[in-house]
Amino acid sequence: MDTLVTGGTLLTMRGDRLGIVDSGALAVTDGRISYVGPAAEGPEPNDAAEVVDASDAVVMPGLVNAHAHMAHTLLRGGAQDVPEIEWMNRALGPLSAHADEADRAAGTRLGVLEAIRGGATTIAEYASEVGTLVEQVYQPLGVDVVAVETINEVPDERDDLGPRELYPFDREQGDRALARADRLFEQFGDDPLVTPAYGPQALDMVSAELLQTVQAHAHERDAKLHLHTAQGEREAIQIEERYGAAESTVSVLDDLGIVDDALVAVHCHGASPDERRRLAEGGAAMLGCPSSIAAIDGIVPPVAAFREYGAAVGIGTDQAPGPGHHSMFREARTAATLSKVEHTDPTALTAAEALRLGTVGGAEALGIADEVGTLEAGSRADFLVVGTDRLSTAPAVESPLHTAVPNLVYSTTGREVRDVFVAGEPLVRDRAFVDADPEAAVTAATERARALYERASEDWRAAGSELVGAVDNGWL
Amino acid sequence: MDTLVTGGTLLTMRGDRLGIVDSGALAVTDGRISYVGPAAEGPEPNDAAEVVDASDAVVMPGLVNAHAHMAHTLLRGGAQDVPEIEWMNRALGPLSAHADEADRAAGTRLGVLEAIRGGATTIAEYASEVGTLVEQVYQPLGVDVVAVETINEVPDERDDLGPRELYPFDREQGDRALARADRLFEQFGDDPLVTPAYGPQALDMVSAELLQTVQAHAHERDAKLHLHTAQGEREAIQIEERYGAAESTVSVLDDLGIVDDALVAVHCHGASPDERRRLAEGGAAMLGCPSSIAAIDGIVPPVAAFREYGAAVGIGTDQAPGPGHHSMFREARTAATLSKVEHTDPTALTAAEALRLGTVGGAEALGIADEVGTLEAGSRADFLVVGTDRLSTAPAVESPLHTAVPNLVYSTTGREVRDVFVAGEPLVRDRAFVDADPEAAVTAATERARALYERASEDWRAAGSELVGAVDNGWL
Repeated sequence: MDTLVTGGTLLTMRGDRLGIVDSGALAVTDGRISYVGPAAEGPEPNDAAEVVDASDAVVMPGLVNAHAHMAHTLLRGGAQDVPEIEWMNRALGPLSAHADEADRAAGTRLGVLEAIRGGATTIAEYASEVGTLVEQVYQPLGVDVVAVETINEVPDERDDLGPRELYPFDREQGDRALARADRLFEQFGDDPLVTPAYGPQALDMVSAELLQTVQAHAHERDAKLHLHTAQGEREAIQIEERYGAAESTVSVLDDLGIVDDALVAVHCHGASPDERRRLAEGGAAMLGCPSSIAAIDGIVPPVAAFREYGAAVGIGTDQAPGPGHHSMFREARTAATLSKVEHTDPTALTAAEALRLGTVGGAEALGIADEVGTLEAGSRADFLVVGTDRLSTAPAVESPLHTAVPNLVYSTTGREVRDVFVAGEPLVRDRAFVDADPEAAVTAATERARALYERASEDWRAAGSELVGAVDNGWL
Repeated sequence: MDTLVTGGTLLTMRGDRLGIVDSGALAVTDGRISYVGPAAEGPEPNDAAEVVDASDAVVMPGLVNAHAHMAHTLLRGGAQDVPEIEWMNRALGPLSAHADEADRAAGTRLGVLEAIRGGATTIAEYASEVGTLVEQVYQPLGVDVVAVETINEVPDERDDLGPRELYPFDREQGDRALARADRLFEQFGDDPLVTPAYGPQALDMVSAELLQTVQAHAHERDAKLHLHTAQGEREAIQIEERYGAAESTVSVLDDLGIVDDALVAVHCHGASPDERRRLAEGGAAMLGCPSSIAAIDGIVPPVAAFREYGAAVGIGTDQAPGPGHHSMFREARTAATLSKVEHTDPTALTAAEALRLGTVGGAEALGIADEVGTLEAGSRADFLVVGTDRLSTAPAVESPLHTAVPNLVYSTTGREVRDVFVAGEPLVRDRAFVDADPEAAVTAATERARALYERASEDWRAAGSELVGAVDNGWL
């Protein structure tokens, strides 16, 4: 036995509730959980190479950030509080167009470190040339990654198109991306921490033919197909123009046979209740990014609804510009808070349910629940020790109810995370990174961001988003 | 000159925007700000007894938590995710009924320390016998407090009343509370950090006669009258029964002459748009607690609307059970995020506007803006140094826009706060309390909470909130 974590309250997430075990113990052998249960019935501390004291703490599965574009973390603070129609083309776009490969790696490293520090052990990274980020950032940091290769047939320059002009499709561009996605399976097939997946970006950005081809590739490799689904008005218009006025994203996906258990539908805020139900009943999983969609669209994504329909549901932080952050505890809080006001119902998405979304829910949606998301003997040893003895989480009481459950969701800042283990290896111990150097990551990202903004400044101003006025008026 | 803070970006909040000064300096002499402006034009570091390095940081006014019941922090995690109708009488009530004076002090100390650690320098404490909390907690910690004495004429036991049965009023009980409120002005008249105020609890809980008497006392002392206003259905029914079917809280307040610039209207989510406008035009200030009202009622409080109407608006964390926390940066984020989905508008309540609500907005609403809430020469030296070089706040860029402004609101966890000064005295330096002992506060609160829950356990279970079922079903 390599590690014995003992003395804390376990939230195992086994079954369909939280699987709470007071005075629990968790043992790790060769990177896998070899015991989980009451400490009194578990292995002897003397038999462990290392003992982790989890008294005054909760031991729980690592958090699963189920959808993120981490490279944009370099542009945190650069694009928010603007109309939805401006966000991509006038605010973020003029900046991100100036990012080079090193910028993307620096932004990704910053975001991933923030996520790990806040308790994430699995991140679904959605990016073009995602393999480069896996090699440069994720593998060196030793964190689980679901590597989703973006597949997009729309050439970059489409700013001049009116909303009803169809985007042109470049099939060769799409095929090159598909080939990159295929290669991930060979390139990372030996690394159990890397799970490749296909990322056809959205139905307005890939042709029906390519989407079906991508699906066939995904089926062949038993892989998931992550598709931004029903993201809003601009997508809806493109679908009408391309497929007919009676069609919507979900109706077209359904006709094309895309709605099945390989589909991971992201966002879905533009889908009607019937369409959401159709996706769930068709076996699709759903990923919601409440902070992001609230910040960018002013809309609450249908996380609670998909849960009601019985779909596997995960949550993610999307990208930093807009929602701002990569803290999964905060995302769980935001998911719960926004669901309550969406339904005018304080019982909508309870703290306990939000904790499941952030752990086993994400793992199920990503198709990796046999390995992560719960504390089970035999699973990969991805887990956290979170202090319940901090100003933000205290007081911890175990009876008549566990106050730690709501307090982890509604009050944790992320800094209460004491230890983070992935595959039995400590990434964070006693609130400090074991190997990674966060100061160096911050310094590098700040230098690169400053240079990028300087290069991009003229384009950014010319694009004329509301932020330009905010600067001129002394708000930014 | 006692202290010179130099090298950071100042957010002075002067004027009606953020008053940003790059490479700024702030000097403190005898507890007051003696210089604020560009470092190059400011005093020499050699002339300062102490120099605080604020490079890679923002220097800003301390946050104003404009409405809080801190004693309930002892019950954090004890009452949330239940129907609104259950929250007070079936979830929180059966626990809080068992709290004694020492419990209330321990809870208050925990909450106030959490608030300070997260950057609050002023807290409006709303409690019965608030003077005791001021003496036991606020004065020893050296933080600004607006001490609001709760005035309530409804005897505690009213659980058995149906919604249309009028609450009985006990004028003697109300007069005793009014006398306690009056005494605060003598008791704390010499302490510039204590601002007494009157807290008639709500229009369904005080008689019209007493409310007018309280108003006269407030006017006499040029003090504010903090009134929970239009809090929801139960209040609306009481008002109809007592004052007539055509009446509402705001119409009655208006008829009674209560709507003036002494009135600080709290919550207001049950007021119609016309009534909100009437309150604002009548000179009332508004306090919103977005996390709390979302958690307990599933409603977004009309913070953004009151701002549009030109009212002074502050935000606060209310109480820990429900929303969970006392972090004002998080409250600012929640205010902005909820306002966006309330109006389906990502430009509603920008980060910069939310920062103003959390500082000068709260100070204006509480009537103390001549002393705190902005960085101005002559004002009380209440300010923060917040690191922008952390995983959550980086990268900080000053041009073409200040990324620190959105990043403070949307990504700060509160732990980035490096230094907290009140009246020129450091409460937190380099992320640690100078005098206060947070571990002792956590330990004391946890011990007291465990004993309280044990005493209350049977009553809590008998009250039968949905939480009882959640425990029995393995969710809590």
